[in-house]
Amino acid sequence: MIAPRLLAELHAMFSADRVATDADSLARYGLDWTRYYQPAPSAVVFPQTVDEVVAVVQWANREQVALVPSGGRTGLSGGAVARQGEVVVSFDRMKAISDFDPVARTVRCQAGVITEALQQFAAENGLYYPVDFASRGSSQIGGNIATNAGGIKVVRYGMTREWVAGLTVVTGKGEVLRLNNGLAKNNTGYDLRHLFVGSEGTLGFIVDATLKLARQPAELGVMVLAVPQLTDIMKLFHAFRERLDLNAFEFFSEKAMRHVLARGHVKRPFEGEADYYVLLEFEKLAADTEEVALAVFEACAEQGWLVDGVLSQSEQQAKDLWRLREDISESITPYKPYKNDIAVTVSRVPAFVERLDAILSREYPDFEVLWYGHIGDGNLHINILKPDALELDDFRRACEQVNEHVFSLVGEFGGSMSAEHGVGLLKRDYLDVTRSVEEIALMRAIKAVFDPNGVMNPGKLL
Amino acid sequence: MIAPRLLAELHAMFSADRVATDADSLARYGLDWTRYYQPAPSAVVFPQTVDEVVAVVQWANREQVALVPSGGRTGLSGGAVARQGEVVVSFDRMKAISDFDPVARTVRCQAGVITEALQQFAAENGLYYPVDFASRGSSQIGGNIATNAGGIKVVRYGMTREWVAGLTVVTGKGEVLRLNNGLAKNNTGYDLRHLFVGSEGTLGFIVDATLKLARQPAELGVMVLAVPQLTDIMKLFHAFRERLDLNAFEFFSEKAMRHVLARGHVKRPFEGEADYYVLLEFEKLAADTEEVALAVFEACAEQGWLVDGVLSQSEQQAKDLWRLREDISESITPYKPYKNDIAVTVSRVPAFVERLDAILSREYPDFEVLWYGHIGDGNLHINILKPDALELDDFRRACEQVNEHVFSLVGEFGGSMSAEHGVGLLKRDYLDVTRSVEEIALMRAIKAVFDPNGVMNPGKLL
Repeated sequence: MIAPRLLAELHAMFSADRVATDADSLARYGLDWTRYYQPAPSAVVFPQTVDEVVAVVQWANREQVALVPSGGRTGLSGGAVARQGEVVVSFDRMKAISDFDPVARTVRCQAGVITEALQQFAAENGLYYPVDFASRGSSQIGGNIATNAGGIKVVRYGMTREWVAGLTVVTGKGEVLRLNNGLAKNNTGYDLRHLFVGSEGTLGFIVDATLKLARQPAELGVMVLAVPQLTDIMKLFHAFRERLDLNAFEFFSEKAMRHVLARGHVKRPFEGEADYYVLLEFEKLAADTEEVALAVFEACAEQGWLVDGVLSQSEQQAKDLWRLREDISESITPYKPYKNDIAVTVSRVPAFVERLDAILSREYPDFEVLWYGHIGDGNLHINILKPDALELDDFRRACEQVNEHVFSLVGEFGGSMSAEHGVGLLKRDYLDVTRSVEEIALMRAIKAVFDPNGVMNPGKLL
Repeated sequence: MIAPRLLAELHAMFSADRVATDADSLARYGLDWTRYYQPAPSAVVFPQTVDEVVAVVQWANREQVALVPSGGRTGLSGGAVARQGEVVVSFDRMKAISDFDPVARTVRCQAGVITEALQQFAAENGLYYPVDFASRGSSQIGGNIATNAGGIKVVRYGMTREWVAGLTVVTGKGEVLRLNNGLAKNNTGYDLRHLFVGSEGTLGFIVDATLKLARQPAELGVMVLAVPQLTDIMKLFHAFRERLDLNAFEFFSEKAMRHVLARGHVKRPFEGEADYYVLLEFEKLAADTEEVALAVFEACAEQGWLVDGVLSQSEQQAKDLWRLREDISESITPYKPYKNDIAVTVSRVPAFVERLDAILSREYPDFEVLWYGHIGDGNLHINILKPDALELDDFRRACEQVNEHVFSLVGEFGGSMSAEHGVGLLKRDYLDVTRSVEEIALMRAIKAVFDPNGVMNPGKLL
């Protein structure tokens, strides 16, 4: 915990209601959605202006205090965890949406804007913010950018990175950088904007962003397909993508779906049952798009790649089908799942999954392992559910042993040990699975350029 | 020029036919498309493997020799110019296309692959490489990435940056980095790949890249519209984009088009004449797409935003319409044009152009100034033609005075002083128009991390 003198300085810097040191706030703002750490920050501050962010960073440099950025704290890798007396800098009071430009299709958001608020703003103005995921109701734009959030529409629209036209950041030295200024084209040297996207608060704070918006999608068609053989999923991906522009291509296992069905709020999509399901979405851009989709469906059925399926006939049905996939994560929360978020090249997914499945069944026959994810991006979420009999700490340690197997295979396949969740605390020790020794050394040197005193989210990522 | 001992070492490193020191080669490989510099490299080497690139970089570090990367040398900012005894490293012998993955839609290209060769490879495999520009027949992939090449389809497909799924680079220290490995998703810390895109050879050499491919576009419709008032162009952009997904939105002046028409290979698109023209392109995705385009056309005509226009009725006609725009640059080459390549936010283009036009007409009444560019990206190419009476050096100096006016206005509008051509030698002294003092200092520090001995393309960009 920081000294009383330093706390007094924080109080002098911020109005009384914008410094919190009560136990509730410290517990709440010291944690993200990972549940493996004990929160222990010294204080939480709530800046309202860029100048206040600069002031707290300069103070942290002067006093050698560690800072942790805090957005919606929906992260899954501990990137926003404060457990060693850090000062948490929350962006809850920076929620302005401004400078909407309908011709350029851009809008400016302060870091604390909730993802869903931006999506609604875009919709009200006849446009669309396409980065979308289950935590849309609480995640914040600053955190999305700091973690380069992905989600369910990446196969069509890409990651958060693609939508950032400009960034205002405060570096670890307390400098304000206004990067790229919302321009569509700007080839004037190193694009520092892209260095900050995905940097997990280790180089500086993102204080606002100019984000691109897309046109609103046409009416959407959603299909769910029953797929007996995992190896056929990428054949389906290829077949459908040859004829349709896919907005999403997700998969989940029967076991995973059962956890959603058990809640009783949605029904099984059709009678046919299979070990795996694919959910895909497309825009009905032409009068015959549905026919095209059904023709591909028939051709794939003839090949034996799928045994049943459904195409949504209404917006409500499309939403219900999405719940089968989107509600998995929430449905298994009571089992304190240990989450892996890995990626390999799309075409190598079947071989990878086959190998991994064999290892997990052999080594961990007692663990319930659920598979789902954004398989059109090569991205798999492997969730291991905690058996009732096992204590949380023992379970975590066991899962870290599982990691050895998983990550060894990820390395062999040249994959990513964190596809979209970032590194934070939870994955820090596995960074070398995906990044070489040279890369990690270069990352440390870059960190030293932007944050020479190491006050920005220390211990995370690197 | 480097010492004979060093030349002998180069000869020992490369086979005889892969070191050139003859006057022709030195003149050819020491220049790009800028015509304001005297080429004077010491030698040109042609590596064939990554190991050879590493060897020459390690040698350069040991011997403190400056290296200049050389691709298709179609750059317009002097980024590939060697005029101070540097050793040019040409990628002409690294032209392999490999590892095509039809499911992931990626392909690997060595740095020396010609843009058009990749486009053809993609087409032969039923796919599409969408980064396209007039120098497609000689520009190389490595150079495209090092300069983040843009072109005529950016409004739909983005810059080269968006298509780079993986990069192999040799840093200025001689380390080999394999960045991102072709993955669709990989949130494992700072994305060094994006640091190399647009770095103009100042951090290291790009030796190969895994590039994404898109589906082939449907049949394309091309319209050319006659627009009397420049301020109405962005109204047209907004109106058409509300109803159609545009692949391109270009503009040019009547004066610029006349230089193309003078060559006699294409005809005026229609009788109506106006000071400005817009060329737009869209995919005919639905049966009624043309009707939609014509309905927007009618609505815009009623507003008085356009006075004439044409919609292509065949592939040949579409191509001919494109020539009106694409052939401008080549048609004016005899006038040794001084090129500016600037960008502002799309919505601010009309105000910017009005101000700039007034300045140029007032200050340089004797210069013929041609306007054209990728106006849907806010990107304007301002070309000043050399009057016959003026010597090249005097003309260049006069244009550098014009730059003061242009860039001062670009700064005022928060724009980019190099939208897609990069900085190189030609724009180096204007970097602070677009990048702050703090940003430039950070860029220098990053350069020092990757290239501590300053052997990589010294004097360019920074």
